[in-house]
Amino acid sequence: MSQPSRCVVIFSRVNGLPVEVRPILIHKGETRSPAYLALNPLGKVPLLEDTAAAASSSSSGPGPAGPAGGSSCLRLPESAAIMGYLADRFPGQVAEHWYPRADKVHRARVEAALHWYQGNIRAGAAKLSFHKVVAKRLGVPSDERVAADALKTLQLALAALQDVWLGGGARRFMTGDRPCAADLLACCELEQLRMLRAAEHGLDMEVILAPYPQVLAWQQRVRDATAPHYAAAHRVLLAAVAKAPPAGGAGGGGGAAQSKL
Amino acid sequence: MSQPSRCVVIFSRVNGLPVEVRPILIHKGETRSPAYLALNPLGKVPLLEDTAAAASSSSSGPGPAGPAGGSSCLRLPESAAIMGYLADRFPGQVAEHWYPRADKVHRARVEAALHWYQGNIRAGAAKLSFHKVVAKRLGVPSDERVAADALKTLQLALAALQDVWLGGGARRFMTGDRPCAADLLACCELEQLRMLRAAEHGLDMEVILAPYPQVLAWQQRVRDATAPHYAAAHRVLLAAVAKAPPAGGAGGGGGAAQSKL
Repeated sequence: MSQPSRCVVIFSRVNGLPVEVRPILIHKGETRSPAYLALNPLGKVPLLEDTAAAASSSSSGPGPAGPAGGSSCLRLPESAAIMGYLADRFPGQVAEHWYPRADKVHRARVEAALHWYQGNIRAGAAKLSFHKVVAKRLGVPSDERVAADALKTLQLALAALQDVWLGGGARRFMTGDRPCAADLLACCELEQLRMLRAAEHGLDMEVILAPYPQVLAWQQRVRDATAPHYAAAHRVLLAAVAKAPPAGGAGGGGGAAQSKL
Repeated sequence: MSQPSRCVVIFSRVNGLPVEVRPILIHKGETRSPAYLALNPLGKVPLLEDTAAAASSSSSGPGPAGPAGGSSCLRLPESAAIMGYLADRFPGQVAEHWYPRADKVHRARVEAALHWYQGNIRAGAAKLSFHKVVAKRLGVPSDERVAADALKTLQLALAALQDVWLGGGARRFMTGDRPCAADLLACCELEQLRMLRAAEHGLDMEVILAPYPQVLAWQQRVRDATAPHYAAAHRVLLAAVAKAPPAGGAGGGGGAAQSKL
């Protein structure tokens, strides 16, 4: 159900990486369990464990230090950093366009796109989803005015995605002709907006994205470029969307009609 | 006045990079001028122009494409990506600990810290500053409830910075014994909270950071590690803080007392 986790899973599958996926169920409190917090004290997903990471690193954290002498098990949070690490860790397998190694200008552009995603697409979409859907499910306070501010942030981000990053349609993906890590991360984030239909009639991914046809076209290109792994990773989300009753009741289209990729 | 711009300036100065600084005055609308938008259609600072970037990159954007045949002038937004690019561009000058190149595990940890900063420290602090200070100055709508939500985000981030990234005080900087790009970026972001005193009595960087003594100690370590460039880059902010009348009027300490680094 986690959008950045799906992204890392798809990235790993598309590039054929030997990554084993272990689901952590947020809604069952598993990100807050003592066992998980011992691995990732930030209490967030995804987390990459590399049990055979280079033991020579002079860095540490976050989280508890390894045994004296330095552990060779890396525990890395943050989806974007995980993808960059996997690209460096499996240089023979991760295609350059996903996260460039040799072309430093391209790498910088991918990283700019990733950071821009964090402060714009993610800042808007995740905050909107939290205050419209997640908070209510977790029984924590939510605020409609914060949700409205997040929607505004998201709409500005979608306009910039369409007009600037995609060059109004002149650029197929955010940094060139082939998809990169930022395309995938942004795309997975936007799919999560499907859950909004359970919170408010007339608010849905389709409704929010409709004014941005180049974003819709790009979204389909990302799905196509990562098939069949994209659909596989979104199966749980789509099932949840299909199960959730649409808010308001006046909506004609059922879950099934809305949950196709 | 821009916190990520200050960060890039300090990063460049500390590492002795041949970076020429050109101020863009946000409050005079310069980030929205046609001339600036032609360089960076995102309308944000900082922007790095590298007029001698490798011309062989297969990537493009954001922004207008160069002349046919490919331009060798790179225009790169996003402070974190700029620092990563500068580290790759000037490998003989940027110290490894600031943005590692050889140690891929350390590089991944620095990038995790940078992305975490975006979604937590930045998401809280910049949103708070915007709704408390910036929006009022620009004459655009602000919302106290959005500011309250941002303050909560920031407080959770400061707790995680202290307890997880700094290991409750066991770790000197976010990824080890020496400062990295994320330490500097987060530190510059937090300084901006000084402007809050003009918006609301009792709300200030000192007040917000007081419950997190390990964050305060780390902040001082970052300043010390980057002296005298840190203070030089913050001169404009501190002058603005000193000039802005404290809100409420009941506050005893004047601007001068509060604007020491």
